[in-house]
Amino acid sequence: MKTDIQIAQEAKMKPITEIAQNIGLKPEEIEQYGSTKAKVSLKVWDRLKDKPDGKLILVTAINPTPAGEGKSTTTVGLGQALSKLDKNSMIALREPSLGPCMGVKGGAAGGGYAQVVPMEDINLHFTGDLHAITTAHNLLAAMLDNHIHKGNDLNIDPRRIVLKRVIDMNERALRNTVIGLGGRAQGVPREDGFDITVASEVMAILCLAKDITDLKERLGKIIVGYTYDKQPVTAAQLKANGAMALLLKDAIKPNLVQTLENTPAFIHGGPFANIAHGCNSVTATQLGLKLSDYLVTEAGFGADLGAEKFFDIKCRFADLKPDAVVLVATIRALKMHGGVDKEQLSKEDLEALEVGISNLEKQIENIKKFGVPLVVAVNKFPTDTDDEINFVIDKCKEMGVEVSLSDVWAKGSEGGLDLAEKVVKTIEEKPSNFKVLYDENKSIKEKVEAIAKEIYGADGVEFTSKAKSNIKQLEKLNLDKMPICMAKTQYSLSDNPSLLGKPKGFDITVREIKVSAGAGFLVALTGAVMTMPGLPKVPAAARMDIDEEGKISGLF
Amino acid sequence: MKTDIQIAQEAKMKPITEIAQNIGLKPEEIEQYGSTKAKVSLKVWDRLKDKPDGKLILVTAINPTPAGEGKSTTTVGLGQALSKLDKNSMIALREPSLGPCMGVKGGAAGGGYAQVVPMEDINLHFTGDLHAITTAHNLLAAMLDNHIHKGNDLNIDPRRIVLKRVIDMNERALRNTVIGLGGRAQGVPREDGFDITVASEVMAILCLAKDITDLKERLGKIIVGYTYDKQPVTAAQLKANGAMALLLKDAIKPNLVQTLENTPAFIHGGPFANIAHGCNSVTATQLGLKLSDYLVTEAGFGADLGAEKFFDIKCRFADLKPDAVVLVATIRALKMHGGVDKEQLSKEDLEALEVGISNLEKQIENIKKFGVPLVVAVNKFPTDTDDEINFVIDKCKEMGVEVSLSDVWAKGSEGGLDLAEKVVKTIEEKPSNFKVLYDENKSIKEKVEAIAKEIYGADGVEFTSKAKSNIKQLEKLNLDKMPICMAKTQYSLSDNPSLLGKPKGFDITVREIKVSAGAGFLVALTGAVMTMPGLPKVPAAARMDIDEEGKISGLF
Repeated sequence: MKTDIQIAQEAKMKPITEIAQNIGLKPEEIEQYGSTKAKVSLKVWDRLKDKPDGKLILVTAINPTPAGEGKSTTTVGLGQALSKLDKNSMIALREPSLGPCMGVKGGAAGGGYAQVVPMEDINLHFTGDLHAITTAHNLLAAMLDNHIHKGNDLNIDPRRIVLKRVIDMNERALRNTVIGLGGRAQGVPREDGFDITVASEVMAILCLAKDITDLKERLGKIIVGYTYDKQPVTAAQLKANGAMALLLKDAIKPNLVQTLENTPAFIHGGPFANIAHGCNSVTATQLGLKLSDYLVTEAGFGADLGAEKFFDIKCRFADLKPDAVVLVATIRALKMHGGVDKEQLSKEDLEALEVGISNLEKQIENIKKFGVPLVVAVNKFPTDTDDEINFVIDKCKEMGVEVSLSDVWAKGSEGGLDLAEKVVKTIEEKPSNFKVLYDENKSIKEKVEAIAKEIYGADGVEFTSKAKSNIKQLEKLNLDKMPICMAKTQYSLSDNPSLLGKPKGFDITVREIKVSAGAGFLVALTGAVMTMPGLPKVPAAARMDIDEEGKISGLF
Repeated sequence: MKTDIQIAQEAKMKPITEIAQNIGLKPEEIEQYGSTKAKVSLKVWDRLKDKPDGKLILVTAINPTPAGEGKSTTTVGLGQALSKLDKNSMIALREPSLGPCMGVKGGAAGGGYAQVVPMEDINLHFTGDLHAITTAHNLLAAMLDNHIHKGNDLNIDPRRIVLKRVIDMNERALRNTVIGLGGRAQGVPREDGFDITVASEVMAILCLAKDITDLKERLGKIIVGYTYDKQPVTAAQLKANGAMALLLKDAIKPNLVQTLENTPAFIHGGPFANIAHGCNSVTATQLGLKLSDYLVTEAGFGADLGAEKFFDIKCRFADLKPDAVVLVATIRALKMHGGVDKEQLSKEDLEALEVGISNLEKQIENIKKFGVPLVVAVNKFPTDTDDEINFVIDKCKEMGVEVSLSDVWAKGSEGGLDLAEKVVKTIEEKPSNFKVLYDENKSIKEKVEAIAKEIYGADGVEFTSKAKSNIKQLEKLNLDKMPICMAKTQYSLSDNPSLLGKPKGFDITVREIKVSAGAGFLVALTGAVMTMPGLPKVPAAARMDIDEEGKISGLF
């Protein structure tokens, strides 16, 4: 069996100029980065803004398990299958971070015969977006420490700084640092630390900004810390947001690439799915809707986090109306939700499946609350038995939901034709009545409770004294009227990763509320969130190589 | 009078595909980065390696003063003037760092009507080379700390680590840090610090490596620290060099751009001129010599540092034979070398000029020691008087050296035609008998003394006890048979920045000797060297902006 990188390296890519031309882009509207990547000018918007949007399809999933679901693979495969049906389709995905690529694994570009290419470039520096974000973020940090060192006119309390630095690397040793050491001329000593770049608020902002002006305004609202009088200090007060926007002038433009079957794809932006909203950029989604009839996109984690944030944050801000949802599940993962060990997944187990399918049912129920019609995609594995498959199909029928067996990993578009047909039919027959879950002008507590009770199925929400004090301060500063970005474990509907299936009789504990004032949301933390991964004992990087001919090995 | 950025923004650039075609590159040999930048494949070398080289012209200068010399401007202007004379000419320059651009000034791309464009891109992220270097360097640092955290099989002494981290930012507060804080799971606490990216040994290596294989080998030789038994630990032992080379696979390819007058230019690599050798990449220079009949390049600082390192390090390693040197001086700077204050430079002062010209005389003498014929370029200022100009011309004639008045800043190629003609004539009439100054197999002391006595004019060299102990250790480890990279003030021929003109009766004090084993040279430090700049009270970034149309302001 071929590896992902072998399949990718055998891909017959078309020149990116041809891909661009096929979707109606003019030569002057793209900037080539080599022959297979391009950035697309935001000026396309001016030309196409009155054109009706294509259909927006969100791919999401049940709560992830170690068994794997194949959400990105399904996204790419569905896009390919829609093309195969002669639909004018496009894909919009997040761009991967270098840190995890050098750490445990590579590829965030699908798998098997449903991949986005050129895979090596996408997983390495790509078009430099992440480097631009790192630089813009760290310029702000440098200007902040420089301000304090040069007299601190803004009266910033060095103990109340909330902006960390960022690096696109798995860097355990930089999680907690002390900086500014070395004496009077070397800055002001203080505690600091580094997050991985995708956790930067600048990344979230880049992905939510509509254009350069919106970007600059949002960057200006980033709160870097507080004064000795507990007043927020922003990037605009440090006069950093103009230069930051300048550094992001190309990063805000969507990156155009293609799938193994030459379906056009935007790979653009990749915010964390815990402390941020976990979807690709608004600019890519909006342009994709103008350039295609069917845009297939994806949200991070399971539907309780990913789809909820896609709807309540991204769609709310960008005024997007999703037309359909594809909810990905696997028999294996559902059996894990039913209590089966990873080692036992190859055996048929209908009892476990009956228990575990509750997770799928709850996610279906949740999607319906947003008013968007959906199709369940069962991502096939060779070990699935007919009885297991039929059980899931029957269950979906009971719930009045279309279901399709998908095999895009092994067969590419051919394996996704049924899914594509059902998605098209669903869109044609079932109108979307999309609505967000809550009014952002409600109180923080009401908004968190709406998500916890309606989406997670919790009995209630407990706010720690720290969270209560955060809420009080945010209300005082008029920073409470924003949507909520929940930072919760992805493995359970609850805030306890070991409660699989559909947990009942639990409360959600909110430990802290942080504000991402530039991104425009409030982050409710239900537990410790890792914003800087570490490397394993033998990092993936230790196996990587490149030879004189430029042939890459060990990347995946 | 127009500013540099106004002139640059009015430039009539040709498509980079046309520039590439004009120098004989095939379409498949370049990768476009937008319409005005491209990377050139190193495979061009295989096609052209048997073609005779063009002529190699080095532009260097007297010791710099606050009055300014205009070395880059002369380099670009000379290239333009050679094109105007219908010569097939190219330029090879270093690429600028973002840190200083956001700090005090922008532009490292010439000035006036002798600039390289697109200026904004060149000064911002350009083609991502510096980001790739930052990432490769910091991957090594992450793997090092991870190795120690995960059991330290190599027995590395955390107190003897010599590899810092890097960031392409003026970051005073990161000069001295403590990392690995936060408890057992967060790494091993130790002292650390950040250098600016251009000071990274990875940058020096990228600029000296001939190809990917050479790059990988050199990266593997980087010494990251020492064991408890004082044995060096290398990047190869951490198995980091394969992944580092992979991250640099595009960065090693020269970047092709153009001047305001469409002369082709490579802008590639930019190592520090103090702790490194301060010239653009070997790959750019070597390819430029195959693609042109006259390649004009530049070295950092004055000739005592820049030209010496260009000859003794770059030319030695890459087997380059320079054909001519252009030595840039200004009347104003020579008067400063003669003791005139910056405020008094507009007044004629022949007496000061007579004293200060000693600096030019010594630099001429030095160039002659390397066997390369030279032309002095006097970069014109409106305040220069005829008597002053004639004095310099006469002095050069006395020394048997061609001299030309250059006015490329105000007039572009027209202002450099005389210089270009004299350079061509010199190359045609005076053969170059280039030789390096010393045998790299001599002892460290002998090599440093050769440079100090023959080039700086010192009476002798004093080695501190630390330097002596460094030498002993390097000899023991067989790391002493490499060329010397002097880290000395650029403002004086001596190691005392206040001794202008041609100082006499001084010793050079070497305080420390460090090894850059991957780059392949020994760094002799004569004083404190700043490898991480700080921002000024009002950073240049605070004035930068970009509007909705993408129009940039405040960049220069």
